[in-house]
Amino acid sequence: MSDALVFFTPSGKRGRVPIGTPVLAAARQLGVDLDSVCGGRGICSKCQVSPGYGDFPKHGVTVARDALSEWNKVEARYDEKRGLKEGRRLGCQATIQGDVVIDVPPESQVHKQVVRKAADAREIVMDPATRLLYVEVQEPDMHEPSGDFERLKAALLAQWEIAEVEIALPVLTRLQPALRKGNWSVTLAVHRDHASPATRILDIWPGFWEGRLYGLAIDLGSTTIAAHLTDLRNGQVAASAGVMNPQIRFGEDLMSRVSYAMMNPGGDAEMTGAVRKAIGQLAEELATEAGIEARQIVEAVFVCNPVMHHLLLGIDPVELGQAPFALATSGAMHLDARELEIGGVNGAARVYLLPCIAGHVGADAAAVALAERPDMSDDLVLVVDVGTNAEILLGDKRGVLACSSPTGPAFEGAQISSGQRAAPGAIERVEIDPATKEPRFRVIGCDLWSDDPDFATRTAESGITGICGSGIIEAVAELRLAGLMDPRGLLGSAEQTGTPRMIPEGRTHAYLLHDGSAEGGPVITVTQGDIRAIQLAKSALYAGARLLMDEIGTDTVDRVVLAGAFGAHISPKHAMVLGMIPDAPIEKVTSAGNAAGTGARMALCNIADRARIEEVVGRIKKVETAVEPRFQEHFVAANAIPHATAPFPHLREIVELPQVAFNAGDGGADGGRRRRRRG
Amino acid sequence: MSDALVFFTPSGKRGRVPIGTPVLAAARQLGVDLDSVCGGRGICSKCQVSPGYGDFPKHGVTVARDALSEWNKVEARYDEKRGLKEGRRLGCQATIQGDVVIDVPPESQVHKQVVRKAADAREIVMDPATRLLYVEVQEPDMHEPSGDFERLKAALLAQWEIAEVEIALPVLTRLQPALRKGNWSVTLAVHRDHASPATRILDIWPGFWEGRLYGLAIDLGSTTIAAHLTDLRNGQVAASAGVMNPQIRFGEDLMSRVSYAMMNPGGDAEMTGAVRKAIGQLAEELATEAGIEARQIVEAVFVCNPVMHHLLLGIDPVELGQAPFALATSGAMHLDARELEIGGVNGAARVYLLPCIAGHVGADAAAVALAERPDMSDDLVLVVDVGTNAEILLGDKRGVLACSSPTGPAFEGAQISSGQRAAPGAIERVEIDPATKEPRFRVIGCDLWSDDPDFATRTAESGITGICGSGIIEAVAELRLAGLMDPRGLLGSAEQTGTPRMIPEGRTHAYLLHDGSAEGGPVITVTQGDIRAIQLAKSALYAGARLLMDEIGTDTVDRVVLAGAFGAHISPKHAMVLGMIPDAPIEKVTSAGNAAGTGARMALCNIADRARIEEVVGRIKKVETAVEPRFQEHFVAANAIPHATAPFPHLREIVELPQVAFNAGDGGADGGRRRRRRG
Repeated sequence: MSDALVFFTPSGKRGRVPIGTPVLAAARQLGVDLDSVCGGRGICSKCQVSPGYGDFPKHGVTVARDALSEWNKVEARYDEKRGLKEGRRLGCQATIQGDVVIDVPPESQVHKQVVRKAADAREIVMDPATRLLYVEVQEPDMHEPSGDFERLKAALLAQWEIAEVEIALPVLTRLQPALRKGNWSVTLAVHRDHASPATRILDIWPGFWEGRLYGLAIDLGSTTIAAHLTDLRNGQVAASAGVMNPQIRFGEDLMSRVSYAMMNPGGDAEMTGAVRKAIGQLAEELATEAGIEARQIVEAVFVCNPVMHHLLLGIDPVELGQAPFALATSGAMHLDARELEIGGVNGAARVYLLPCIAGHVGADAAAVALAERPDMSDDLVLVVDVGTNAEILLGDKRGVLACSSPTGPAFEGAQISSGQRAAPGAIERVEIDPATKEPRFRVIGCDLWSDDPDFATRTAESGITGICGSGIIEAVAELRLAGLMDPRGLLGSAEQTGTPRMIPEGRTHAYLLHDGSAEGGPVITVTQGDIRAIQLAKSALYAGARLLMDEIGTDTVDRVVLAGAFGAHISPKHAMVLGMIPDAPIEKVTSAGNAAGTGARMALCNIADRARIEEVVGRIKKVETAVEPRFQEHFVAANAIPHATAPFPHLREIVELPQVAFNAGDGGADGGRRRRRRG
Repeated sequence: MSDALVFFTPSGKRGRVPIGTPVLAAARQLGVDLDSVCGGRGICSKCQVSPGYGDFPKHGVTVARDALSEWNKVEARYDEKRGLKEGRRLGCQATIQGDVVIDVPPESQVHKQVVRKAADAREIVMDPATRLLYVEVQEPDMHEPSGDFERLKAALLAQWEIAEVEIALPVLTRLQPALRKGNWSVTLAVHRDHASPATRILDIWPGFWEGRLYGLAIDLGSTTIAAHLTDLRNGQVAASAGVMNPQIRFGEDLMSRVSYAMMNPGGDAEMTGAVRKAIGQLAEELATEAGIEARQIVEAVFVCNPVMHHLLLGIDPVELGQAPFALATSGAMHLDARELEIGGVNGAARVYLLPCIAGHVGADAAAVALAERPDMSDDLVLVVDVGTNAEILLGDKRGVLACSSPTGPAFEGAQISSGQRAAPGAIERVEIDPATKEPRFRVIGCDLWSDDPDFATRTAESGITGICGSGIIEAVAELRLAGLMDPRGLLGSAEQTGTPRMIPEGRTHAYLLHDGSAEGGPVITVTQGDIRAIQLAKSALYAGARLLMDEIGTDTVDRVVLAGAFGAHISPKHAMVLGMIPDAPIEKVTSAGNAAGTGARMALCNIADRARIEEVVGRIKKVETAVEPRFQEHFVAANAIPHATAPFPHLREIVELPQVAFNAGDGGADGGRRRRRRG
């Protein structure tokens, strides 16, 4: 018998190999995913396998105890020094001596699949751009002179089949001492993505280096910058952190930042410097938290809206503030972190920016598309990423449309009389009893409703400080469901509604949600002005979605995905009552969590995903809302609660919408403003 | 007649084109070299041609007056605004209406051939990596959103057939204002060399920019840094300058700089910083002299020895100071000037470093090989680049060998009792009358010999200050020819030689070349110590050449090329008497001037030359002198004047070598040193 049958699990791959073939070589031959950093020298221990012995009726073989070669010196030394788990062998050392079944444990698979936790649960196949390689280099010979780098390249070709190699200059300056200290062996951090055939050496360590490489997935928002420090070996998040975007001092929303750049020469450079500095600090903070060196952070992937995209790159965003909203560049960007002057990471770290879809639909929307893949959906899916601007995607396998809609900051609790950011003490859930018209609510940081006896004690520390975005949405929807507000958004008076909770507010009315004045706390009401602000925001959002629906000629969608950190907290029922989103079966309205952040992590962990999203973005059809007359029409028609543009059979299945109509008085749309003027 | 015969001169290309074809299009079709920056829009005027009319018996045609279309509006406007030379047409405007002969004047040829002046005369075909392109870009359309850069790429593809485009980030940040200011047309500085398929945009100007691009050809020597600011359109040198290499304060010669780096942590970085700063200052100086902006300098090409190569790159040169003399990298380098922190040039300027041949044979030797192309020589040629280290190339079409030899600084006037650098006042030519034993000489800055009656007046300003490298070589050779020195290098006494010019110098003798003491000037002698120093230097040089000759089994070479600034001043006859170089027909010993500098300019002006030299360097066989026992043998045997390793029939044809032998006394090889000790 000169060859043997080998079965690999869990891949199910099998084949015959010559007797004496190392398991690692057999795995490569049969296309089995078995890891190795040292290239089969018994140094890295990444190629551990578990041979099975005895009868395997499924495979039709009986594996003898001597199906693999005996434990050799390298394995013995490794076991002594670091300990090899019971039953494990080093794939590069154990050779095949007879028919055998070999299990590759998850940690020995390069393309390990990671199941993310909680709301973000999604599998990411690991295939990052940067990985570690161990390589042994020939010593110099003065009679055959060649540079150390040239011999390193020869070794990479011979040992790893890497033909085209570049080296960052700072690494080249460290090459000679590293080779000599490592006795002509080194571990390299090598980077290669889909955009270039060249492999770039980002860092070098003498000998076999045991460390790990990390990447940053950064969601660069207008308000906050969120970063996940991600282990590039297994995709696990080692640390997460968020900071306020320091550009806020130049303008709360994007357009005010664009204005700042227009009005102040050098203002864009100032904003660019501020955000780059904040990213560097965030990187340092994350490295400290995870107990790693800045040098181990070799990559960063950014998702952001077009204005942030330009400001990060140092491009004046002025063109994004005026028609035709031309991007300086829409393609994905491949850069050195050094070019962006971002600190806190490896000096040769690479940066990848996802492509932008259009002047108002940025890399963040691209990231959502990567995470949700509407282009692969069988049914028609609407994906809305709710923020100061809403990015909206609509489509299925046949095609995807995108637009952006200027919702404004009301959904984030701004421009609301008692509004505040989502933070402990903020009302985030609201219910109003349709019979008694009495409210109950929950605040962030406490899992009890306000009618629970322990509520007061449990919220003593945070207090009840205001109402956040999801809270105001629920409150407005509940007012409608309780018959306290009519379809036009007008609140009734105490007389009209029969509840003293309706209190006069200038010439309009307000609903008293919580009176904390006895304890020195705030009086929290929902005013006519608040409702108008929410109506404007939700009309913009709905009008955008509606415009895309028009474009493909449909009145309904099969499902709705709410993305964005805020999207995760919106109640689907209330969103539908409000008419933020089109009518759909309630169970088909789901949250995707921070889909943009997920997209960033996917692009960080898998280079094929980068190529994929670039290809998908190229096929997404952009619809510009800013100059589309129908957008205005939809916007007006969407003002009603729910909207007045299409029937909502699914909504009617789960709620009853009271038929009420109140007198606008002389309040109405601008009642809130008048109130303040007179107050 | 639907087509016409077109003859282009001086290329001689001809062919038929349809009536109505613009001359520029016809030129492209027939492969005629006709320039255009604006791509045929009548903007740049680079495509000017001179049509010929009347009988052309050689071509067998008669050209009618209406063989080209009539003068059109674009040509009229151009003529009015800037003036078109008599008889000239714009090739993009004039269309072919009948058989015609069209002359392309030199300034309308892209690949213009430049004849360099004086000693450096050599043709350089212009095909630089960086050129200007005018391009018209489509305006943005919000309904078909794409980035400005993406539309620029589309324009480059459509108008210039450039498919793969990269843009430097600082240029991307200026793209939007430039496009708008130029009303959707821009002029780009685009860079593409042989190493990458991508074209990189280095700079951008609104509309059609009339300026010129420049490159620096830099010969980065141990002692001096010489730079030529070169017009990338025609290869002409706009300004030249040289400065002392500021690293001299860390060590006169290379090995003392290597020692400095070894002894002082951070010493290499200090030297790197110093040389980079000096290069930046040199660039600024050249730009000022030529009246251009730093921004117009878009490229720099460096040639240098391996130690300077490493120090420029920021690589500690310590490995070059010890066997096996391993280079960190030997390949050509393609970098951003920014990576090298070199100022005074365009922020996106590119840098090219020629490849090194081995640890002791650097990019300077590669540049000499490019300028002299020994690999294309039919006869066996020896090329020596004389400096503190001599780089030696020997070969012909069948193969080229290279080595480096540590000649030391004696050839540069150092370690010589009355030695000085080549500067006004230095004796550079010497003759000694064999009959009278009386000398005459010339000094730098005066074209008269010292026996000319006007000599004293004409040298009054500079004085006679010392003797430079070429002067000491001639003096030593003349001493031998005059019978004042024997073949071992020993000087005779006044009695032995019969001339009072031989004066006692300790226990040895010295030859009195010039006594300026009466006028308060120096007494200039050639001492036994000076002769020993020159013997050491010339023995090293000859031994290197001899080692290469051994390698291919020859006692003779067909010709000798003396390269290097110093090489240009050496008298071939004296070099041969001294035995610096092997015996060869005197007319076959020529000077190549600063061949390394020429190689740098060639690589700057023609990218094919870059590819060529990389290929040639790959084929050059390196011989290491440092560890070769035969080098020592040759070194000892070469001590005689001339050397004692082979006959010298060619030398004997032109000179008579007196048979003399003097008593070494107790002076001899170290007589000079003893003298000082006792003096």
